[in-house]
Amino acid sequence: MKLDVLASDGNARRARLSLPHGLVETPAFMPVGTLGAVKGLSPVDLETAGASVMLSNLYHLSVRPGIEVIESLGGIHEFTGWRRPILTDSGGYQVFSLANLRHVGSEGVTFRNHLDGAELRLTPESVVESQERIGVDIAMALDECPPWPVSLEAATESLDRTHKWAIRSRQAWQEKDTTLFGIVQGSTFPDLRQRAAEELTQLDFGGYAIGGVSVGEPTRERRAVVEWTAPALPTGKPRYLMGVGTPMDIVHAVQHGIDLFDCVLPSRNARHGMLFTRKGLVRIKNARYRDDSRPVDEDCSCSVCQRVSRALLHHLVRSGELTGAVLATQHNVRFYLDFVAHLREAIASGTLTGFAASVAASYPDDSSFSESPATPGSTASKS
Amino acid sequence: MKLDVLASDGNARRARLSLPHGLVETPAFMPVGTLGAVKGLSPVDLETAGASVMLSNLYHLSVRPGIEVIESLGGIHEFTGWRRPILTDSGGYQVFSLANLRHVGSEGVTFRNHLDGAELRLTPESVVESQERIGVDIAMALDECPPWPVSLEAATESLDRTHKWAIRSRQAWQEKDTTLFGIVQGSTFPDLRQRAAEELTQLDFGGYAIGGVSVGEPTRERRAVVEWTAPALPTGKPRYLMGVGTPMDIVHAVQHGIDLFDCVLPSRNARHGMLFTRKGLVRIKNARYRDDSRPVDEDCSCSVCQRVSRALLHHLVRSGELTGAVLATQHNVRFYLDFVAHLREAIASGTLTGFAASVAASYPDDSSFSESPATPGSTASKS
Repeated sequence: MKLDVLASDGNARRARLSLPHGLVETPAFMPVGTLGAVKGLSPVDLETAGASVMLSNLYHLSVRPGIEVIESLGGIHEFTGWRRPILTDSGGYQVFSLANLRHVGSEGVTFRNHLDGAELRLTPESVVESQERIGVDIAMALDECPPWPVSLEAATESLDRTHKWAIRSRQAWQEKDTTLFGIVQGSTFPDLRQRAAEELTQLDFGGYAIGGVSVGEPTRERRAVVEWTAPALPTGKPRYLMGVGTPMDIVHAVQHGIDLFDCVLPSRNARHGMLFTRKGLVRIKNARYRDDSRPVDEDCSCSVCQRVSRALLHHLVRSGELTGAVLATQHNVRFYLDFVAHLREAIASGTLTGFAASVAASYPDDSSFSESPATPGSTASKS
Repeated sequence: MKLDVLASDGNARRARLSLPHGLVETPAFMPVGTLGAVKGLSPVDLETAGASVMLSNLYHLSVRPGIEVIESLGGIHEFTGWRRPILTDSGGYQVFSLANLRHVGSEGVTFRNHLDGAELRLTPESVVESQERIGVDIAMALDECPPWPVSLEAATESLDRTHKWAIRSRQAWQEKDTTLFGIVQGSTFPDLRQRAAEELTQLDFGGYAIGGVSVGEPTRERRAVVEWTAPALPTGKPRYLMGVGTPMDIVHAVQHGIDLFDCVLPSRNARHGMLFTRKGLVRIKNARYRDDSRPVDEDCSCSVCQRVSRALLHHLVRSGELTGAVLATQHNVRFYLDFVAHLREAIASGTLTGFAASVAASYPDDSSFSESPATPGSTASKS
């Protein structure tokens, strides 16, 4: 793995990450293919949308189809049909949110999986080894993701464990094709975040992630975590903000030097009929779109916007048709990929501040991302 | 509309249908986009699969979004984003199967729709007019589709009504861009089928369909209807077998001179993990495919078979992932389109009998299309 910083604008940077399966221009958005595919998209669709890297999830893939199956098929790229770089989350978050936990100890985590209840055990070493075995480009260390809010005492105890696991993960890493990222935890406590960033940096990982956000905390807290943590991470390595976020979350994080993002928002919102456009969110089920002949986003060049109207999307999504979800996902994922491409251009041309202001104007209210129906007069239903 | 017969092999014929939105090489298969899209496919996907004509449904489109909405958007091609020919079924079948019928009389059908119970009225004239207003290439006359089995008396009474409607449909047809097909009913009674074909032919429709099949009758009965009816239809017009069928149903009908087909089998079966291949049906959920690195069909050049393994399809379909349904549909629809392309080549080269034998070998048992789990030793689970 190699990181070349090509341009900067304030703390924001436009860089190029060289990975075994290709180049990733950053800031980059990684569409979420938890089980090996972005819900509703084929690998070809994802390429067409312009994705350079896909995120998948080691926990889910361990439960089904199993690491040994993926390995026997030639690795995760052969298995998924996605030939470009892949980052896998370790699954620590899913173990704590989905599985029936049996025991969390210094050795690792023992749990019954969420599907058939079979007992699984993850250790820092096994998580690194599994990711290396299936040939991911970027592996994530096993961490513990505390809920929000959490007491300082519990956050400190959790962070201590995550740090011990980080040391063991670093030792297990073979430093061959797969790069290993460490994950900064510490909840919303600035001292813990600072300490975690410093201790991880000393371990010399291939890159660094900010974890433990997007777990229900207010936007203000999430952004504060980025502001405390990002400056404490080394400049020569990629920085990844896990599970974030809205367009404005991403702009904010880029302005603080983050390079990589993943988020389910574009694909999950698509399935609920919430479409991203350059002028703001379109809730396509709204009756006003019933006979709207315009494309979803008049400035979008995706095949959906080139081909069909808001009226068709309205009809298909309201009818619960599979194609509604497919078209909406194709568009939303493309929107996010175009959005980070625009951020890269803005950084290179020194116009990031102006672009950030235009994004803030189109997405003024984070509450517009909630899945509740728009209330009259709220910004949530503005198109 | 123009029909050019280019070659024949026995009663089978390879022809070219010239329609306002393009050419249709026959025998042709029309993927079913009931609500304006094939479930899981974008218009681009459907083009990529090689479809030359899509089927949609006037009843469903009348209920939602409504004929006036489609007309205000510029017609059905603008609305769906599908630029090639479109045939709409009149919806007679759906009125009888889905709607809450109020009154069937000589004038037409009054019913409450299946969505919100609003009262709708279809007459032979309104059905033709609606299809012409939204600009379909091929319109179907309003007919009554009796269930199977039905008494001779009830079938006769129903056919009399359908025939009166056919006369009025023919009179309503403006004979401009949209071509109108008449529909032969008569259940499984040879005399009724013969009479219906003769009477309809005298009305000089743009084409002729065999309706009232695929309503639960045994394969033997369905094929007999084709054998009685097809020879009674004029050779200078296209012949369409509605709602059929399995690969062997299609081969049989082509051998009796049928040109056009539509069926939900490839798309519906895809969503249940039943994949068509040149070697027979693959039930992809079967455990044997868990680590099968082969493509779904080794002789298929669709993007699914070029890109991913049976193991991925197995994983995604078993996991209930949207992408599983999408990939399976892409493959199955492509299989059907390749299949009719192969039939066209076989007719042109005089090798239809040999091709029919190879299809019969791969699809020996129609019961393999039921959605019940394969029983041990049955052909249903053979790949």
